[in-house]
Amino acid sequence: MAKIVMKFGGTSVADVARIRNVALLVKREVDAGNQVAVVVSAMSGETNKLVAWTREISPLHDAREYDTVVAAGEQITAGLLAVALNAIEVPARSWLGWQIPIRTSAMHGSARIVDIEPDLLNERLAQGQVAVVAGFQGIAPDNRITTLGRGGSDTSAVALAAALKADRCDIYTDVDGVYTCDPRIVAKARRLQKIAFEEMLELASLGAKVLQTRSVEMAMVHRVPVRVLSTFDADNGGTLLCDEDDIVEKNPVTGIAYTRDEAKITLLKIPDQPGIAASIFGPLAEAGVNVDMIVQNVSEDGRRTDLTFTTTRSELDRAIDVIRKAAPQIGYKDLISDNNVAKVSIIGIGMRAHPGVAQTMFKTLAEKGINIQVISTSEIKVSVLILEDYVELAVRALHSAYGLDAA
Amino acid sequence: MAKIVMKFGGTSVADVARIRNVALLVKREVDAGNQVAVVVSAMSGETNKLVAWTREISPLHDAREYDTVVAAGEQITAGLLAVALNAIEVPARSWLGWQIPIRTSAMHGSARIVDIEPDLLNERLAQGQVAVVAGFQGIAPDNRITTLGRGGSDTSAVALAAALKADRCDIYTDVDGVYTCDPRIVAKARRLQKIAFEEMLELASLGAKVLQTRSVEMAMVHRVPVRVLSTFDADNGGTLLCDEDDIVEKNPVTGIAYTRDEAKITLLKIPDQPGIAASIFGPLAEAGVNVDMIVQNVSEDGRRTDLTFTTTRSELDRAIDVIRKAAPQIGYKDLISDNNVAKVSIIGIGMRAHPGVAQTMFKTLAEKGINIQVISTSEIKVSVLILEDYVELAVRALHSAYGLDAA
Repeated sequence: MAKIVMKFGGTSVADVARIRNVALLVKREVDAGNQVAVVVSAMSGETNKLVAWTREISPLHDAREYDTVVAAGEQITAGLLAVALNAIEVPARSWLGWQIPIRTSAMHGSARIVDIEPDLLNERLAQGQVAVVAGFQGIAPDNRITTLGRGGSDTSAVALAAALKADRCDIYTDVDGVYTCDPRIVAKARRLQKIAFEEMLELASLGAKVLQTRSVEMAMVHRVPVRVLSTFDADNGGTLLCDEDDIVEKNPVTGIAYTRDEAKITLLKIPDQPGIAASIFGPLAEAGVNVDMIVQNVSEDGRRTDLTFTTTRSELDRAIDVIRKAAPQIGYKDLISDNNVAKVSIIGIGMRAHPGVAQTMFKTLAEKGINIQVISTSEIKVSVLILEDYVELAVRALHSAYGLDAA
Repeated sequence: MAKIVMKFGGTSVADVARIRNVALLVKREVDAGNQVAVVVSAMSGETNKLVAWTREISPLHDAREYDTVVAAGEQITAGLLAVALNAIEVPARSWLGWQIPIRTSAMHGSARIVDIEPDLLNERLAQGQVAVVAGFQGIAPDNRITTLGRGGSDTSAVALAAALKADRCDIYTDVDGVYTCDPRIVAKARRLQKIAFEEMLELASLGAKVLQTRSVEMAMVHRVPVRVLSTFDADNGGTLLCDEDDIVEKNPVTGIAYTRDEAKITLLKIPDQPGIAASIFGPLAEAGVNVDMIVQNVSEDGRRTDLTFTTTRSELDRAIDVIRKAAPQIGYKDLISDNNVAKVSIIGIGMRAHPGVAQTMFKTLAEKGINIQVISTSEIKVSVLILEDYVELAVRALHSAYGLDAA
């Protein structure tokens, strides 16, 4: 007998028929003798509808009211799934964030889970009752409803699994696992049987949309074994997120990610002196602009140099605005921005042990005539910024070069 | 400066444009220096959609899960109206049943309000913040969401007005007040300026759908002045529910109500002996069947007689079932049922002081050739059961006979 958390996303509970199907998947685990907690998202389309209404009334809405409105979506699914389970003789009840409670920070719209009280749920699970938990929501210290940001139900599920000390957390979604690359642009992409938490974290941060980054972080910290599998084909496939040590054969590159949500800003002829980076990135941080890659040229004359950094496209205008206002302190000559760029990354824990992995990337791109604009590296990934038009070409070439293509 | 509760029904908040319009009506009261709490229903159509999903999954759904699902409708409206108010510079926040809290009985689906904690709301109202309260919902002693039954937001509003000791409770709806009769079938129906609580209670119980019966009961008990007025024409019309003593000119008949949701059961040749009524109505009460009118004929031979009673059409089958099972104890000869009947009622506090009011009713119906099947009376109303086909004819004739026709 195991204690498991199952999580179902919006497409898995999109209508009454699919909610019934989810109930059958839950029943199977119960019949196998397991204690089961289920985390659900809003029915697909519901959240978008609620968000659209809120924005239509006021683009500058209060985040606390936004949370009150959108959290209703998960509340509805939780109640409906509990009804569906009871209808097939599986004892179940719904739990809302405030009823458990799932305590979060007060950062409405993107709150962080602080604490989940496990006792009441564990008691019910031990009695054989399935707990159907509304994902994506919690309560702030002042008792108002919070939400965890897009994809937050993944984080709810992993946090719940950690709090309940569950044996595993199964994330049911509309794909059957984690792939070496986005199968929509690389036909030869392969599903991974296992992936290390660290690799998944990089993949999620770098553009793969299977799991919310924070849920992977949390799984890694609490060592929660997470499986990603398909609601519509639950018996086949699946990818296990696990400790690095549980992966025997460590390939230099496990997966390739890309994201088009990139924009680049170059400041020309800034003074090459201590404190100049702080005068640029301080104001950006204060304004809440996320900066990703940074590169500073070597100064030729020791006095002036150029600096380039990237941010998301949606933040580009704000970033430019902040820089312009800080121009007197920075003292740059010109500002050039470009959002026709994309980031391509190779990820793999085996990289640590295999020298020359980055070199293969640079050579492969050079052979295709693709210019690398910015490079950033970590222990287990290399990212490059290139012209957006070359994304598909670059990704396919790298997938072959690292031997990832399916036979 | 007054403290007021405003309540808006589903058609008043049916879409984003109407929610904005409601915000303007609230702003007007705030600008006039009033402290305002607003109670909202779900956007029209939302509750029906949620109910339909629940029923589709299981007709025999758990009432606690039903409540969790449908209460989401009012939660959404409360959040959206708070956003709309903030957008026009009116400080506002939403309040859900569990946040106030509004404590109710555990009778899910038709819970009764037990207690509303007023301190926190009063504090915010005093600071000039509008409280937008989700109607229709509360929490049971075990912390689960309850709902108050169809039309329950009216009751939420009146109960809130009583708890806050508000100066008045304005019920905004899609009609501009309470009429002498349903204007859809009596073209000459007139809007009433004032109506006594007792009369409104009878009207609501007897078929007028302007207000939920329980909300009127509560207004009467707590002496909350209630106004019914139109969201779409807020400056005109309106009807004030008030104490009988506040009505100077008491007409013998104030209004005429009717309901088609009636069914009749007649038991032939039951023993005319003590305890026979208990043997019939005891089992019906245990089965939760509501019995309305009852008439027992005088026995001709002192041994056997006939008994007729009415119930709602939806409960007819269940009532027949209960009676058939109790047949050995009752000992009737035959059972006849009929759901081609309707109830027409005249209501007026002036009835007490005017003899002959009922006689006018019987004479008027007789002149139109309408047969009266059952009669039931109280101090301020007379109800008769007639063939359903004659409803419109009967109502119009009575409306004229009691001098209620508009000039």
